[in-house]
Amino acid sequence: MKFGVVARRDKEAALKLAYRVYDFLKVSGFDVFVDEETYQHFPHFSVEDVVKLEDMDVDFIIAIGGDGTILRIEHRTKKDIPILGINMGTLGFLTEVEPNEAFFAINKLIEGDYHIDERIKLRTYLNGENTVPDALNEVAILTGVPGKIVHLKYYVDEGLADEVRSDGLIISTPTGSTGYAMSAGGPFLDPRIDGVVIAPLAPIALSSRPMVVPATSKIDVRILTLTRNVILAIDGQFYTYLTPDIEITIKKSPRKTKFIRFSEEIYPKYTLKIKKKF
Amino acid sequence: MKFGVVARRDKEAALKLAYRVYDFLKVSGFDVFVDEETYQHFPHFSVEDVVKLEDMDVDFIIAIGGDGTILRIEHRTKKDIPILGINMGTLGFLTEVEPNEAFFAINKLIEGDYHIDERIKLRTYLNGENTVPDALNEVAILTGVPGKIVHLKYYVDEGLADEVRSDGLIISTPTGSTGYAMSAGGPFLDPRIDGVVIAPLAPIALSSRPMVVPATSKIDVRILTLTRNVILAIDGQFYTYLTPDIEITIKKSPRKTKFIRFSEEIYPKYTLKIKKKF
Amino acid sequence: MKFGVVARRDKEAALKLAYRVYDFLKVSGFDVFVDEETYQHFPHFSVEDVVKLEDMDVDFIIAIGGDGTILRIEHRTKKDIPILGINMGTLGFLTEVEPNEAFFAINKLIEGDYHIDERIKLRTYLNGENTVPDALNEVAILTGVPGKIVHLKYYVDEGLADEVRSDGLIISTPTGSTGYAMSAGGPFLDPRIDGVVIAPLAPIALSSRPMVVPATSKIDVRILTLTRNVILAIDGQFYTYLTPDIEITIKKSPRKTKFIRFSEEIYPKYTLKIKKKF
Amino acid sequence: MKFGVVARRDKEAALKLAYRVYDFLKVSGFDVFVDEETYQHFPHFSVEDVVKLEDMDVDFIIAIGGDGTILRIEHRTKKDIPILGINMGTLGFLTEVEPNEAFFAINKLIEGDYHIDERIKLRTYLNGENTVPDALNEVAILTGVPGKIVHLKYYVDEGLADEVRSDGLIISTPTGSTGYAMSAGGPFLDPRIDGVVIAPLAPIALSSRPMVVPATSKIDVRILTLTRNVILAIDGQFYTYLTPDIEITIKKSPRKTKFIRFSEEIYPKYTLKIKKKF
Repeated sequence: MKFGVVARRDKEAALKLAYRVYDFLKVSGFDVFVDEETYQHFPHFSVEDVVKLEDMDVDFIIAIGGDGTILRIEHRTKKDIPILGINMGTLGFLTEVEPNEAFFAINKLIEGDYHIDERIKLRTYLNGENTVPDALNEVAILTGVPGKIVHLKYYVDEGLADEVRSDGLIISTPTGSTGYAMSAGGPFLDPRIDGVVIAPLAPIALSSRPMVVPATSKIDVRILTLTRNVILAIDGQFYTYLTPDIEITIKKSPRKTKFIRFSEEIYPKYTLKIKKKF
Repeated sequence: MKFGVVARRDKEAALKLAYRVYDFLKVSGFDVFVDEETYQHFPHFSVEDVVKLEDMDVDFIIAIGGDGTILRIEHRTKKDIPILGINMGTLGFLTEVEPNEAFFAINKLIEGDYHIDERIKLRTYLNGENTVPDALNEVAILTGVPGKIVHLKYYVDEGLADEVRSDGLIISTPTGSTGYAMSAGGPFLDPRIDGVVIAPLAPIALSSRPMVVPATSKIDVRILTLTRNVILAIDGQFYTYLTPDIEITIKKSPRKTKFIRFSEEIYPKYTLKIKKKF
Repeated sequence: MKFGVVARRDKEAALKLAYRVYDFLKVSGFDVFVDEETYQHFPHFSVEDVVKLEDMDVDFIIAIGGDGTILRIEHRTKKDIPILGINMGTLGFLTEVEPNEAFFAINKLIEGDYHIDERIKLRTYLNGENTVPDALNEVAILTGVPGKIVHLKYYVDEGLADEVRSDGLIISTPTGSTGYAMSAGGPFLDPRIDGVVIAPLAPIALSSRPMVVPATSKIDVRILTLTRNVILAIDGQFYTYLTPDIEITIKKSPRKTKFIRFSEEIYPKYTLKIKKKF
Repeated sequence: MKFGVVARRDKEAALKLAYRVYDFLKVSGFDVFVDEETYQHFPHFSVEDVVKLEDMDVDFIIAIGGDGTILRIEHRTKKDIPILGINMGTLGFLTEVEPNEAFFAINKLIEGDYHIDERIKLRTYLNGENTVPDALNEVAILTGVPGKIVHLKYYVDEGLADEVRSDGLIISTPTGSTGYAMSAGGPFLDPRIDGVVIAPLAPIALSSRPMVVPATSKIDVRILTLTRNVILAIDGQFYTYLTPDIEITIKKSPRKTKFIRFSEEIYPKYTLKIKKKF
């Protein structure tokens, strides 16, 4: 078994725990790699074990941090490597265990006592080309000028779903349904639902509502505000400006995110976290 | 081919159109039956063609009325008979054609130029027994005293999903997602989603949110307000009072509602109607 | 100074504390009266000090309980007697001090070290007659059949404000804005605002919104659903069925609720409690 | 009587109507001035009647356009000149008459058959200094990076009202309550209410709610996200970037907006427009 170790870069405790995990796995005889950015913030790892996330080719990644760390892994790695998330963030919707459970969890992983929780991702095509990362949480199409609405039309499987004047539009996976989409009024989507939330952000029309469509749908977004650029934000991490004449299409990605889980529990695991959001 | 004809009882135009449809089908040589209640409100049909909805055993039912007429058919018939809905209601989320298209549509039906749109239904078990109709739209568990909250817990597949103090709880199919569940803040659910909306009604806790769970889930509701009865309302048509010690379980029904459709259009067919709600 | 003591009837700790307060005030030489219902649940008070709430004519009432106890006092007493609320409820939006501060607070009251927080109330006229209690929190006009909408029109100062099909309509004071009106989507209304929230409850039309109108407005509600009675619920305590032909008018009452306060704090006193609602 | 004429610059029909109004008033013997930008887009006015909006000192301004035109006048003029708004926009919440009523309305104005509808404005202080225009609709404090939340605290009269992680915060007058604040979930505020809506924009915490506070309150906003600039947007017209260490204070302005009105109608005049928003 080969392992990768990736840590949150701005939190020393996460970096230190990453080193202890790395050390433990090395001592246990496994091949272990650490991502370049983690190394840069904590240069105690062996240089020969350092790789870029883009080149990481291991059986499991141990991610020590919050949801941001996991999103960074997801946006960079080229293979669907199962991730064990150790929570060093705040709420940790994506992570599986707390730091004090880290070594217990890693032992269970080594023993094969786990299952894989596969989550869908969304792929975005700009004028038919995919040049941006897949979204694990959501694709957001946002006004380029905060406070100035954009005028959008969106289509589901070629049928006009709605036309909105709003701050933007959020297209979310079940995984992302507890995030930005929920702030926009969307529902919690059970991760077993093969669906996608489409939620307008602060729409002018009070009758514009969140909807849930099959993940297999083709979602097309057209920008009718021709005087202003829009922003494409993927998982709140990857940003790009788009000109208003661009054709945006969103579909389920062929790739999946794979999480290591030790229980199949959904309720109240996720619904309790919703109540703790602040 | 055998046909059934069922009309809205409180609207003369619907009853008259039902008679014209009945007459046309008879003249065309088909066996046609009319439901007893339609007959009682318009006693011009041949007595030998009158049957109770519960005993109707035909290939297709022509329903002339609004959503209420279709729900009446669904709650009473014992077989999953395909329904062609002719809209004599207001919005007509469930009906397929307008009155002026009635005979054109019936001819297409006779020629086989249609498809069947199957919709899931929800079955309710009270202390393990199913004694109430299946819901095409929603199962609502409501306070028995308007304005006095009930305290409920609900579980999805044995996991606690939420605990709410509210006016009630609405568990809705995709078909019902544009109705009561939407008034409670729920999303539009594409009918192709095999899912169920669970939405608390006017909850005290602002962090209680609508959720979408797999239709294959087992949903259990427990009543913690022991001093007050609750109401079980199915599709806004069937009502019964429940004592607070009752165990309520909701699952996908083995039965389906089958609608005759002439197009597969979902968007903007349904989303436009949401905007016209008043 | 004359005092009244009123306790929550279903909680022994509240009744016992009421007795200690009563005893302390008697020993201190004041005239003290206890309400009949408190006495019935804790018959240790001197019989000659027992009066009905309706006949209580004192300078201050010490209320030991939750919001329900204060609402009971408000609905029964005939004078606007200042109330010191000692919290033996859950959230206690209306009460001022916790039980462990009770005697400290009473001493401050005796010493005159307090101020009066006056709150507006709403008076309801049915066909022009006022025969129901004033509302400290809200007047709710609710469907008489849970789950079946009522069709209402409401007018502000003779102008049509909205027409709704909904589970009901809530007309709330600033004091009540954290209660039922908020569950219906209404805002928090600072108690210094001389205004009233009007919020439809689970309306069918998604464009029906809560509004805030001057407390000096005349609000008229007309029921268009002629086949079903509606319920008038005042503060969730007083209930009556109304026939649909009744004309309902709501105006600011000439009476006020007067709370004893030891600080003028509004923020975060009330806004924090909103977050703790469950 | 001296008149000013200001038109929407991007709509020829508005510019032409402005010229006809100007011509009519000149012929009627009044002094009439036209704003420089209107002139630049329609150079048929006499050059000697052209003035900058900043220098316009007249008894009434005839504004021909939509809400944007009125906001431009409000942000530029130095005196509280009564405005007659002729609607050449879409919904026209602020304008009073339609184009076909323009001359009828101007005659009523000349005859003195009107009343003045005074509306409050909000003044923004940055580190104690007011260098930005007053808001007729709203002051919005927005994330400088769309899709990345800001962390804010806001205080009402020195008390902490709430702490939010959101896309921003909207502080709206009654006039603005039908605009951005409503998209953020705020209520309609009757223009007679001397109050202000504070509404978080897409907050993470589901328990953060819109509130209505006295217009006489001092509202302080502090930015806790120190790594990112925020945007101050006034009426969606005036924009500036703020560094996160800035202290933002919002108070009722000593200035008012004065609208010429021919009726005192509020309902259904404004509430109907809410339903027509798109």
